[in-house]
Amino acid sequence: MFRRVLIANRGEIALRIIRACRELGIETVAVYSEADRESLHVAFADSSVCIGGASPTQSYLNIKNIIAAAEISDADAIHPGYGFLAENATFAKICEECGFTFIGPSPEHIDLMGNKSNAKETMKKLGVPVVPGSDGPIKDAKEALSFAKKIGFPVMIKASAGGGGKGMRMAHNDITFLKNFETAKMEAKNAFGNDEVYIEKLIEDPRHIEIQVFGDGNGKGLHFFERECSIQRRHQKLLEEAPSIAIDDATRKRMGEVSANAIAQLKYKNAGTIEYLLDKHGNFYFMEMNTRIQVEHPITEMITGVDLVKLQLIVAAKGEIPFNQEDIKINGHAIEFRINAEDPEKFTPSPGLIKAYYVPGGFGVRVDSAAYQDYYIPPFYDSMVAKLIVHGRDRAEAIERGKRCLKEFVVEGVKTTIPLHEKILENHHFIAGNIATDFLDKHFK
Amino acid sequence: MFRRVLIANRGEIALRIIRACRELGIETVAVYSEADRESLHVAFADSSVCIGGASPTQSYLNIKNIIAAAEISDADAIHPGYGFLAENATFAKICEECGFTFIGPSPEHIDLMGNKSNAKETMKKLGVPVVPGSDGPIKDAKEALSFAKKIGFPVMIKASAGGGGKGMRMAHNDITFLKNFETAKMEAKNAFGNDEVYIEKLIEDPRHIEIQVFGDGNGKGLHFFERECSIQRRHQKLLEEAPSIAIDDATRKRMGEVSANAIAQLKYKNAGTIEYLLDKHGNFYFMEMNTRIQVEHPITEMITGVDLVKLQLIVAAKGEIPFNQEDIKINGHAIEFRINAEDPEKFTPSPGLIKAYYVPGGFGVRVDSAAYQDYYIPPFYDSMVAKLIVHGRDRAEAIERGKRCLKEFVVEGVKTTIPLHEKILENHHFIAGNIATDFLDKHFK
Repeated sequence: MFRRVLIANRGEIALRIIRACRELGIETVAVYSEADRESLHVAFADSSVCIGGASPTQSYLNIKNIIAAAEISDADAIHPGYGFLAENATFAKICEECGFTFIGPSPEHIDLMGNKSNAKETMKKLGVPVVPGSDGPIKDAKEALSFAKKIGFPVMIKASAGGGGKGMRMAHNDITFLKNFETAKMEAKNAFGNDEVYIEKLIEDPRHIEIQVFGDGNGKGLHFFERECSIQRRHQKLLEEAPSIAIDDATRKRMGEVSANAIAQLKYKNAGTIEYLLDKHGNFYFMEMNTRIQVEHPITEMITGVDLVKLQLIVAAKGEIPFNQEDIKINGHAIEFRINAEDPEKFTPSPGLIKAYYVPGGFGVRVDSAAYQDYYIPPFYDSMVAKLIVHGRDRAEAIERGKRCLKEFVVEGVKTTIPLHEKILENHHFIAGNIATDFLDKHFK
Repeated sequence: MFRRVLIANRGEIALRIIRACRELGIETVAVYSEADRESLHVAFADSSVCIGGASPTQSYLNIKNIIAAAEISDADAIHPGYGFLAENATFAKICEECGFTFIGPSPEHIDLMGNKSNAKETMKKLGVPVVPGSDGPIKDAKEALSFAKKIGFPVMIKASAGGGGKGMRMAHNDITFLKNFETAKMEAKNAFGNDEVYIEKLIEDPRHIEIQVFGDGNGKGLHFFERECSIQRRHQKLLEEAPSIAIDDATRKRMGEVSANAIAQLKYKNAGTIEYLLDKHGNFYFMEMNTRIQVEHPITEMITGVDLVKLQLIVAAKGEIPFNQEDIKINGHAIEFRINAEDPEKFTPSPGLIKAYYVPGGFGVRVDSAAYQDYYIPPFYDSMVAKLIVHGRDRAEAIERGKRCLKEFVVEGVKTTIPLHEKILENHHFIAGNIATDFLDKHFK
């Protein structure tokens, strides 16, 4: 096992990784920007190194300084968390070249899945259902239009290097297509430095269902069932559940097997998530694969009892997954609420001083947070204050527990998404499980 | 289901009950003493009533005022929590006479089990193994001595109305017997107003193992496996685990069946705990039965997934347990740490202002606490600040998680038992599971 791990991240995920390391007897090194001196991840780590200014490019995206910190602190591995450098193949490669184990997949797999068009092509070959669409990027607008007509409107135009909704446009007819094709290309160029786009059939009223997977890098691939992530706003997840109420046992089994098989064939190593769109008829289509631990991993931990971050460390150190598919079972139902410091009406960030902070407790309640009373939320990073995760024997109990906890949760000094979550839990479409990715737009405009 | 429940208690257990009520859609009424105005149970309840002065006899033991509060607030049931009036048969009777459902067993069962000598007699008849001892109290010292000689030294002299170690004395020979017989009688008289004592064979180096039971009042009796409560100090539990490392599956099954069968035959209603001594050879002997929810109930919740306080409310309202024995399964391992505000060296209470308070979070962690930053711990009640409960896939993971959480837990301003718990987790006898009720005396003098 590793002796000392450097965590190239901040906030709750840095804390989450510190906790996993501590329980495995691994020493931790935190890195921090000048804005994060008072952060809990710095206080909780065994040692810490300042890596630069408040701006992410100066610190958490600063590969040179992070590698220097790992060298100074004599770490033997680096955990990237999520966001920042987590899906940067160059960073993964430099880590390995400098003698630090990168706790994640190989640079080649990061690269492969980072290119959305290559990822889809690969998955298709591995037997994973994909959305009908162009084989790779289409450069010419006319050629693209003729392809769109062939598969039939509505279609999506998507950046090959994309993610997070950038460089993504919908088109319902010839005119909007030509206009949006150019817009998508421009956005893609600006956001990712690459203007390649591809065309896909639009799946109407889809659910966003993702499968947690793990590979040992030697051909063993496991899945940890699905997460229902349809409650999104501007392509950002807000509330996630596991398992999904929309999936029957046969579909669950098939999605899991297809995903685990792809991971095994790819000889993928460490944690990953395969995201699917699920249509109204129970068909699922590969959307993209994330080659990192996800924000919403705790709900999978709650229903399976497996500590996924510990498993990341074990797989990175030993190249083995110490159990098999039949050992992974679903127990109960879990919901995660992202408590963001933002105006829930306007969806604008609301950084500032947390004057009072009380986290809910009791049975079936988990809070992953780097916040505390008198903590100042800096304006430079994402706005998540806490993840509230509840677990119940079934979905109904999890929902009631969620309501109870949201009522108990006190965050004074900044506006948060707590009231929005409370409204979602009261919504009868949500209670009935009638949700798709347009849920928030449809019911909370 | 009940519409409105009054909680005749304070602190973390009052909060625990409020949480269960809220998840079942039941309104809550808190009662509080003049010293508890700023308490969290008052803030969290839907309404609250002041029932008297700081001294427990003026407030939390004041039956008249509690019943008046229930009448004023139009409650339809009363939950007594643990301690205070929880095992007072008169209170249970008055509740029922005044038209409030008492959330607990019948006054007759409370009475029966409250008298330790009657309880033992009853359990013996129901097929529960008991420690060899006198059939009922013995008044005469000489008669008692001759009985002690018959069963053989060492023996215990115990108050019939006892509990919590009061009126309890050990004797190894004739001389200490006669001296301690009188002392035990005097203590019993002072503590319980009843000087009756009985004689029992002393089980050497016993473990304290208890079985969580539930009855529907109509002959259905279930058990929820055992809790290992051997880590005690002056007969007060400090750290509890479930399941016990000392019990094999056959013993586990037998202890559970014997206990559930007794509950069924008694037509016992609601939650109870049957406490046993377990000797080195795997024999178990009935010690006493507690007719309330216990402080350490959360560890049973963590390994079974059943919310026991919700179940108390459901059974009290409907007279039914909505599942069967085969639905209750053990999943993983849980440990509870009682974080008391006391000097861990001297075991003396340490009330005062909590200047900083940070509770650990993350996977497998539960905190049941009524404390918060800037809360003043009043000197009138027990010294428990929080219950930290950890859950892991196995005992080793639970221990590592416990260590991690104790290190994270911040309580500034008062001394606590946190350092003592940290030492226990480092002790190799504890790690090996070699514990008996003398563990703390033996290793932490």
